Amino acid sequence: MNIAIDWGNSAIKAGFFENGALIEVHAHLSIEALHDRVRKQPPDAVVISSTSRPAEQLRDQLPLKPETYWLTVDGYTPLPMEKRYDTPHTLGTDRIAAAVGATVRFPVEDCLVIDMGTCVTYDYVDADSVFHGGMISPGFRMRFRAMHSFTERLPLVEPEEPRPTLLGKNTRQAMQSGVINGLLAELNGIIDAHRRERPNIKVLICGGDAPFFESSLKPPIFVVPELVLIGLNRILQHNVYLS
Amino acid sequence: MNIAIDWGNSAIKAGFFENGALIEVHAHLSIEALHDRVRKQPPDAVVISSTSRPAEQLRDQLPLKPETYWLTVDGYTPLPMEKRYDTPHTLGTDRIAAAVGATVRFPVEDCLVIDMGTCVTYDYVDADSVFHGGMISPGFRMRFRAMHSFTERLPLVEPEEPRPTLLGKNTRQAMQSGVINGLLAELNGIIDAHRRERPNIKVLICGGDAPFFESSLKPPIFVVPELVLIGLNRILQHNVYLS
Repeated sequence: MNIAIDWGNSAIKAGFFENGALIEVHAHLSIEALHDRVRKQPPDAVVISSTSRPAEQLRDQLPLKPETYWLTVDGYTPLPMEKRYDTPHTLGTDRIAAAVGATVRFPVEDCLVIDMGTCVTYDYVDADSVFHGGMISPGFRMRFRAMHSFTERLPLVEPEEPRPTLLGKNTRQAMQSGVINGLLAELNGIIDAHRRERPNIKVLICGGDAPFFESSLKPPIFVVPELVLIGLNRILQHNVYLS
Repeated sequence: MNIAIDWGNSAIKAGFFENGALIEVHAHLSIEALHDRVRKQPPDAVVISSTSRPAEQLRDQLPLKPETYWLTVDGYTPLPMEKRYDTPHTLGTDRIAAAVGATVRFPVEDCLVIDMGTCVTYDYVDADSVFHGGMISPGFRMRFRAMHSFTERLPLVEPEEPRPTLLGKNTRQAMQSGVINGLLAELNGIIDAHRRERPNIKVLICGGDAPFFESSLKPPIFVVPELVLIGLNRILQHNVYLS
């Protein structure tokens, strides 16, 4: 059994893989809970992407067997994907993992991978598993936070369902509409631009805010919440094979 | 001669009107320069919108004749436009003035007014000069600032011409592409949504960042840099007539 870990700023997201299949996911795991889970069922291998802290901090706290294979993904990790990027070593491991995840789901198709987290990233991976780069724009919640932090008079507004109309009738409604309808227009516009160049491109969406927007995007859209974990496990398999 | 003043956080923008026509504009005027200009040619009336400081601070520093008519626009100022809004008294004077400016340019048409400043506002005024509300989303430069301020690893990036491709090949290019292509998709998407409901709606754009996007928007688009000043002068005329 392998464990793939996505260690973000606040929580640990972990996926448990058996023979390449994702059998269990925990989106908000504490270190203690992960510790207990590892003791109960020691993994053969662990792969981790950490966006803020050194991954070794976590390894030292887990009761792993000495022979457990440990892989911390960084800009130098061998990948089952070619990075056609000016600065391949600085490319974020989240973007790498999500893109590799797309090649697992659609191994012989062009893919647009949209990850809706703190920022929204839009990356293109072609049918030969070549990563071509993409875009980074402010995330859903970041947009609300920015309008409050960088102006004198606008309040801090929380996202609300249902989708607002174009005509907000007070400040909060206008900000809700601006962020939600604005980001939706951005998503659909960028997806359209990619589809114009590659009509058969597969559009995959992951990240915490994806469910909020999913139903308003022009189909077909593949929402794959565990895309980063799936990609991490694929990177692990690639490196175990190499080693 | 009337002076319309838009007093923002950093600079004074002033327009000089003769018989209803804008004859002179200064986009970045110091208080001293405005003082000299007023002494040289004393105005009959002054109208001002101030987003940060009390407008009276400016009045006290100008060598106005005692009989000069002074109008500070706020949420209670009588307007040549009906505000169909839940909280009419809190509606920003910039949004009010730009919308009134649109009714000067197109008095008997539906208008979508887009103001690209610190935030981007999208407001709808109908052919009977009724304001129906709209959207507020993060402005062009705010998006770059937010990604740098609210993440650990992203740099502060400045906007650059020409328009970037969808496939940024390094972090800076990806952020450029995300903000510029993202906002462009938002603008075109929101304009399209309004045009679907009202095919003949006139789309007017003002604000400092409008020229950056103008050529990439789906025509017809009316770029009117002085829309706020034109609206302020119209509000002045309305109130002088009432008084």
